[in-house]
Amino acid sequence: MRPRLSLHPDRLLPADPGTREVARRVYAEVADLPIISPHGHVPPAWLAEDTPFRDPTSLLITPDHYITRLLHASGVDLARLGVGRGELSEPESREAFRIFCERWPVYRGTPMKLWFETVLDQVFGSDLVPSAQTADELYDQIAAWTTLDSSRPRALMDTFDIAFLATTDDPCDDLAHHRTLAEDPTFTRTVVPTFRPDRYLEPAAASWIADVDRLAEVSGQDTGGYAGWVAAMEDRRAYFKAHGAVSTDHSHRDLGTEPLEAAEAERLYAEARAGRISAADGDRLRRHMVAEMVRMAAEDGLTMTLHPAVHRNHHPGTFETYGADAGADVPIAVEVTRALQPALARHGTDPGLTLVVFTIDETVYSRELAPLAGFYPSLHVGVPWWFIDAPDAILRFRAAVTESAGFSRTSGFIDDTRAFLSIPARHDMARRMDSGFLARLVAEHRLTEEEAVETARYLVQTQPREVFGL
Amino acid sequence: MRPRLSLHPDRLLPADPGTREVARRVYAEVADLPIISPHGHVPPAWLAEDTPFRDPTSLLITPDHYITRLLHASGVDLARLGVGRGELSEPESREAFRIFCERWPVYRGTPMKLWFETVLDQVFGSDLVPSAQTADELYDQIAAWTTLDSSRPRALMDTFDIAFLATTDDPCDDLAHHRTLAEDPTFTRTVVPTFRPDRYLEPAAASWIADVDRLAEVSGQDTGGYAGWVAAMEDRRAYFKAHGAVSTDHSHRDLGTEPLEAAEAERLYAEARAGRISAADGDRLRRHMVAEMVRMAAEDGLTMTLHPAVHRNHHPGTFETYGADAGADVPIAVEVTRALQPALARHGTDPGLTLVVFTIDETVYSRELAPLAGFYPSLHVGVPWWFIDAPDAILRFRAAVTESAGFSRTSGFIDDTRAFLSIPARHDMARRMDSGFLARLVAEHRLTEEEAVETARYLVQTQPREVFGL
Amino acid sequence: MRPRLSLHPDRLLPADPGTREVARRVYAEVADLPIISPHGHVPPAWLAEDTPFRDPTSLLITPDHYITRLLHASGVDLARLGVGRGELSEPESREAFRIFCERWPVYRGTPMKLWFETVLDQVFGSDLVPSAQTADELYDQIAAWTTLDSSRPRALMDTFDIAFLATTDDPCDDLAHHRTLAEDPTFTRTVVPTFRPDRYLEPAAASWIADVDRLAEVSGQDTGGYAGWVAAMEDRRAYFKAHGAVSTDHSHRDLGTEPLEAAEAERLYAEARAGRISAADGDRLRRHMVAEMVRMAAEDGLTMTLHPAVHRNHHPGTFETYGADAGADVPIAVEVTRALQPALARHGTDPGLTLVVFTIDETVYSRELAPLAGFYPSLHVGVPWWFIDAPDAILRFRAAVTESAGFSRTSGFIDDTRAFLSIPARHDMARRMDSGFLARLVAEHRLTEEEAVETARYLVQTQPREVFGL
Repeated sequence: MRPRLSLHPDRLLPADPGTREVARRVYAEVADLPIISPHGHVPPAWLAEDTPFRDPTSLLITPDHYITRLLHASGVDLARLGVGRGELSEPESREAFRIFCERWPVYRGTPMKLWFETVLDQVFGSDLVPSAQTADELYDQIAAWTTLDSSRPRALMDTFDIAFLATTDDPCDDLAHHRTLAEDPTFTRTVVPTFRPDRYLEPAAASWIADVDRLAEVSGQDTGGYAGWVAAMEDRRAYFKAHGAVSTDHSHRDLGTEPLEAAEAERLYAEARAGRISAADGDRLRRHMVAEMVRMAAEDGLTMTLHPAVHRNHHPGTFETYGADAGADVPIAVEVTRALQPALARHGTDPGLTLVVFTIDETVYSRELAPLAGFYPSLHVGVPWWFIDAPDAILRFRAAVTESAGFSRTSGFIDDTRAFLSIPARHDMARRMDSGFLARLVAEHRLTEEEAVETARYLVQTQPREVFGL
Repeated sequence: MRPRLSLHPDRLLPADPGTREVARRVYAEVADLPIISPHGHVPPAWLAEDTPFRDPTSLLITPDHYITRLLHASGVDLARLGVGRGELSEPESREAFRIFCERWPVYRGTPMKLWFETVLDQVFGSDLVPSAQTADELYDQIAAWTTLDSSRPRALMDTFDIAFLATTDDPCDDLAHHRTLAEDPTFTRTVVPTFRPDRYLEPAAASWIADVDRLAEVSGQDTGGYAGWVAAMEDRRAYFKAHGAVSTDHSHRDLGTEPLEAAEAERLYAEARAGRISAADGDRLRRHMVAEMVRMAAEDGLTMTLHPAVHRNHHPGTFETYGADAGADVPIAVEVTRALQPALARHGTDPGLTLVVFTIDETVYSRELAPLAGFYPSLHVGVPWWFIDAPDAILRFRAAVTESAGFSRTSGFIDDTRAFLSIPARHDMARRMDSGFLARLVAEHRLTEEEAVETARYLVQTQPREVFGL
Repeated sequence: MRPRLSLHPDRLLPADPGTREVARRVYAEVADLPIISPHGHVPPAWLAEDTPFRDPTSLLITPDHYITRLLHASGVDLARLGVGRGELSEPESREAFRIFCERWPVYRGTPMKLWFETVLDQVFGSDLVPSAQTADELYDQIAAWTTLDSSRPRALMDTFDIAFLATTDDPCDDLAHHRTLAEDPTFTRTVVPTFRPDRYLEPAAASWIADVDRLAEVSGQDTGGYAGWVAAMEDRRAYFKAHGAVSTDHSHRDLGTEPLEAAEAERLYAEARAGRISAADGDRLRRHMVAEMVRMAAEDGLTMTLHPAVHRNHHPGTFETYGADAGADVPIAVEVTRALQPALARHGTDPGLTLVVFTIDETVYSRELAPLAGFYPSLHVGVPWWFIDAPDAILRFRAAVTESAGFSRTSGFIDDTRAFLSIPARHDMARRMDSGFLARLVAEHRLTEEEAVETARYLVQTQPREVFGL
């Protein structure tokens, strides 16, 4: 008899029976609350055009580097999974899906397994466990599902009860898709852009001059000098804000916010425009620019999220063949206390400023982030991100942060995903883990159950609204 | 019906029923042992003069930066809490207390909540949960309590059963309060000073020249040259030791103990005296001075406690308005293995030396501190300090340190607090967490219950006496 | 009544009764599988010559720095334990053993206690708890045991069911003992050498010139120039491989693999040969040589294990008196992402390459190692090593690594020990902890019990064979 997939109602709750009882009751209070997703990577075109999904592989495998990287580590060429290629033929797509199903055991113990099982059960209504034997049947089930009207993105926004969804967008984007959605009276969900200006803040990067030229075009500001760059940024932030944006997102190698003297900033900017800036000076100017962004955030009120300390495109061969975002980005250590000091010294108590720092370097939770967020009203500790958006890591995060910063200084859950179908599974995992954490505090008589329930609702409903100014 | 506060007898013990049974029995063996507090910040004047406490806010809120910083993070001006001001008027004091009560939920999940609840129940005999509704009634209850004779510091030393209490004092202090206490036959508790010379070891700091001048005056040694500085330090250590001191305490940005050549030390000292030393040379001279302190400790037997790696006064605006110790100190990463190597190479096996290294950077527990303390007889791992003096962090500490260093290489609990009323609650928390940790080892058949009980008593009674040479 | 030692059958399994039930069933499936020990330090002479063990102290205390270092920390001179001396007299040996027994409580909470108890019970059949009272009787029991034929190394290989054992050997070693074992038809177990070339890769070390001269002699390659060094290394690797070696082992201060230009490598090599290379250039050349080793590994298929970031001989006094490996090696922080990038850029997807990175710096598990091993097919995360080869640390390792890399990207257990008698205890501990970890995932409905059992068997049987190419 082949195994059948079934989701246990108590999955992810603590094993101790007494604690689980409490966790069940806490979780029940938040399980069905609407989803607020203030940071993620769903393409707005999907929703604007309500594009049907094509085939199981392009839906679930190819674009999801959480999935493809472990297959790659187990010896599968990314090309066989469709990465960096155009549309796969039906046999190729089916073959890629089979590879995934055959190697299903590599996901044991990972959140990818749990998310995928949740999608199989709750979205596709399947009880098949992926394997060489089930690959074709499962492929057919999912392929059939993609043809239904109820499987289209807009319908799923309702089914998933996603009340708020932020996408991630280039500052030069015209946000046409967002306008389409905003102007459509039949679309009742809220979808907003996020201002993601990284490329314009890396003056030593190869594409920077062209990027900044394009910025000039779009903003109508002359980006030939630093003042023009600032004006262009302010212009585009205002444009995004007018289109509903609530936040800007930033990912650089470090968190540095050391400002330069005005003349030095001008000089380095000119060097960069001339294509002559060194890598070290590029970093200095970038830190100055990030500090400028903090100042703008304090003024225009857009929440500023920081996702630092990643070595992008670690494997050059993969980058050359498949481009960026192919799963070869790898975290490095981060430093927060000194890096953010200049910005916090100037704006840390500005009532208009909200900073959220995410990290994969868990060492900074108890050492730096919680102590900082426990003092500065502007600073919030981001929930676990990317590699550590995972059950045990979520508990480690709460245990490391809560004892000095409490619950009120965190960010609310963000899913940070382009895997649209997994959004409910990801939010559900966070709710379960937070409920289990709170239940342990109750079981240890550190909170009353009433306090735990109130806190759980706060984390799901109130906190993301407050932190992202919804 | 409004909620009533009640302390559960099993609070903080592990949730698993079998483990909890063991934990209860282990805890029962240590729950009522006298308190030994070998490092803290209670002002000796309180005890010498047996000053009555004034009002709830100046007693519980204003001086406790664990409390004020989270209120500040939630948007409250420190000034409204009385920080950096003289005595508050009764309406101001009541208002500050109300702010605290209204924002009580920000402490959920923190040890501050648990300490405060313990004080409410066990010191004030109150069953009120702080809130906007209860603020006034609670204020009145505490205000009434402060007027009782049994609420004065000396009476509380008996009620709390504090057998030994060390304060923290400037090397130039005349220790008059300690003398008063030592000479008073009616005072049966032991209160001793601690030698805290940080300011005299930071030659690049603005106040250093004046500080060292004052040191000359007090010690009668000419601190115009390095040899005089050494003699002055030795003089004051001897003075402190004669007044009962058992330890010296040190907090610098790093743990460096690299000595300089004698001539180089002289030269840098002269530069510092002339007000010309650079920040980098100031650090080099400071590390040399710390190495000198290790040498003195090996000779005079005063235990040397190290609390490194804090970015003091992180927010300049707060420092300018409210001064130091206003909650804006933030930890940074620390390195131990290389930093202490020069001192340990010279004195690490000296029988007279006892070093205790505290840290907020938990990464060094298993990587550096436990391996070092598991080899060097002079080195002990300090229990969790400040931000991580908290239930889950205590368990992480034990789990990270014990497997390579056992229990015998740690420091015994220190409360490090100026929040006098919370001292019993803090020691009780540590006893509960250690009992729970030991109970888990019993439940996993790694210790017998007899070994666990013996270890628990050792940690509370024997270890602090041994480590601090009582 | 004196306490009696007894090993609980459920030792080290999780305390929660439901989880323990599952853990028992999972563990039962792997408890009796043969031992594969692909990295350790058992002297091959013991097996080749089937030397009987001499006395309890030289068997269990003197050579085991896990044991001696905690005694040293508690104030015992290493000399009294026999370290750095020739054979102890019977009274000296008995005295050393008594010191150990008297101080038995210092091991509470450590794996050393658990390993030792397992050896007492399962190897010696003793039920004595070490103490001043039992020291002599226990000494006599063990001394009697050493005289039995069944106590000799070869018999124990069978009793312990060690199917595969790798030793650690100098590249210049003639591997005569291994040849003896391989050519002996009566010896049915597999014992192979491991190529450990560290000393030949540290060009700034005092002994390097002599070492490389000896390498020239043994390999017949002229190591006067860099090309000859490369040829000599390739020659000795081939020799080791011909004698059954499956891996090379490397331990340097950092993980750097930055290659030099060919001419620069030549130049630095010449400097080193002339005894003139600086420490910094020695590090640069060493990193180049490590990169060369990665290239060789990709070509000859020997698995490359890396044990970086240890400050060797931290206490010079101990080194002078007792030599290396006397327990005074102390870990430092390590960096992986950037250090391995050059090697992974060139060889990270080579099908022939297997790298295994071990660490005592637990911070890199979730931040760097798991993300890297979850992408590169050549990279595996080594199980906890040395100070962190311990129950709680094993659980932390699995929790930190599994959520992004799953189980398939780890190394299988290695015991890394010269304490021959403890090998079964160490493997048993790892099996119990992994079973407990898997059981928790089952209890939290993250794995089915069938998946957990399959994974447990995979970790014990299949993974070490795959990772070490057996």
